[in-house]
Amino acid sequence: MSKVIASITTSVDGYVAGPDDGPGCGLGVGGERLHYWVMGGPWTYESEHDPGQMGGADKEFFDALVGGFGSGICGRGMYDAAGAWGGTNPFGGKLYVVTHRTEDQPDPETGFVFVDGFDRAMELAKEAADDKDVAVGGGADVIRQALAGGYVDVLAISVAPVVLGGGRRLFEGFEHDLDLEKLSVHSSQYATHVTYAVKR
Amino acid sequence: MSKVIASITTSVDGYVAGPDDGPGCGLGVGGERLHYWVMGGPWTYESEHDPGQMGGADKEFFDALVGGFGSGICGRGMYDAAGAWGGTNPFGGKLYVVTHRTEDQPDPETGFVFVDGFDRAMELAKEAADDKDVAVGGGADVIRQALAGGYVDVLAISVAPVVLGGGRRLFEGFEHDLDLEKLSVHSSQYATHVTYAVKR
Repeated sequence: MSKVIASITTSVDGYVAGPDDGPGCGLGVGGERLHYWVMGGPWTYESEHDPGQMGGADKEFFDALVGGFGSGICGRGMYDAAGAWGGTNPFGGKLYVVTHRTEDQPDPETGFVFVDGFDRAMELAKEAADDKDVAVGGGADVIRQALAGGYVDVLAISVAPVVLGGGRRLFEGFEHDLDLEKLSVHSSQYATHVTYAVKR
Repeated sequence: MSKVIASITTSVDGYVAGPDDGPGCGLGVGGERLHYWVMGGPWTYESEHDPGQMGGADKEFFDALVGGFGSGICGRGMYDAAGAWGGTNPFGGKLYVVTHRTEDQPDPETGFVFVDGFDRAMELAKEAADDKDVAVGGGADVIRQALAGGYVDVLAISVAPVVLGGGRRLFEGFEHDLDLEKLSVHSSQYATHVTYAVKR
C-alpha cells in the first residue's frame, strides 16, 4: 500500500535551516548541526574533512524510512541549495521539483522532473511510485503544502540537539490542526527521530 | 549539585498552548491534548470525567525529572491559568511566581512567593533549593528568560503528538543559539520526552 511520507530535520526551536540559507549553505549559518546525524558527526560547509558515515540509531531510522520510496517531491529552493546533488537524483526513482521556472528542466536522464505546482507534482509522483511510497522532502513550504493538502500519511521529524534562534521555521504560518499517532522513535546523540501517522 | 531544570510540553509545531489560553482554559482551545500524558489519557476542560493516572514511560520521565526539585519558578500567567492550583503549591518547596503585581501575594502558608523580576526569583529559588534542583516551569516567556539568562542546566521538552496550528509558541522571539546534549528519551503514545543538557 503506497504511502506519502514527509520527512525533515529541525532544531529544537523548529527551524529547518539557520539564517541566510541558500546555494552553498543549504542549512544556513550554523545549520550544519542539523545534519550531524546525516553525516555521522560534526562537519561544516568550510571543512573539506569528511566526518564519517551515518550509523547506529540514525541509520536504523533512515533505512526504515527510505526503504519503500518509489519517487519523491522537493522544492526548487532545496534543489538549488543542494546544487542539484551534483547533477543526478541520488534518491530512488524520479524526484519531482516544484518550481515556477520549468524552462530550467534538466536532461530527463538526471532523474529530476520540474513541475509547476505542488498538486500536479504529487499526482505525478504518486503515479511514478506505483505501489511504493512517495517521499516529500524539504523545504519547509513543500512539507506544509503536503500537510495542508491532506496528502501526508506519515510525518517523520528528526530533531537535532540545537537551538538555532533564527532561520526558516518548519511550521511558519501553518494554521491547520492535526492529530498524530506516534509510530516509532529512534534516538542518537545527533538527533531524535519520531515518526507519526497523520490521523484523518 | 544543584541544577536548574526547565521543563515544558509543546505540540509538534512548538506551541505550549493552543489559541485563547487563560484562566479556566490554561492550555488554550484544543490544548488539552498537550497534557494527555500528564492525565494518563484523553480529557477536556468540559469533561467532569477523570481520565486516569500518569503511567508507563510518562511516569518514569516525570518521576526522574521532579525527584530532586527543591523549589520552583513560574510566571503569573501560568499561576492564574492554573487557578493557583486550588490555593496551595502542589510542588515541592516554594514556588516563586514572577509578577509585577506583587501586592496580590497570598498567605505565605500557600507556598507561593510573588517576586517582581525573573532574576530575583531565580536568586531566591536557588537559595531555597539549597543543594536540590530548581524547577523552571511555564509559561513560555519564563522558560525563554531562563534560557536567555544562561541559567538552565537541563531542558526537558515533552512533545505531544498534535499539530495545533496556532497559540503560544515556546521559542517565539528567542534569538539565542544554544548547543544541547541529549541526556534521555522517554516515549509513550501521549508524548515523547527528551531531556537535554545545555552546553556552555
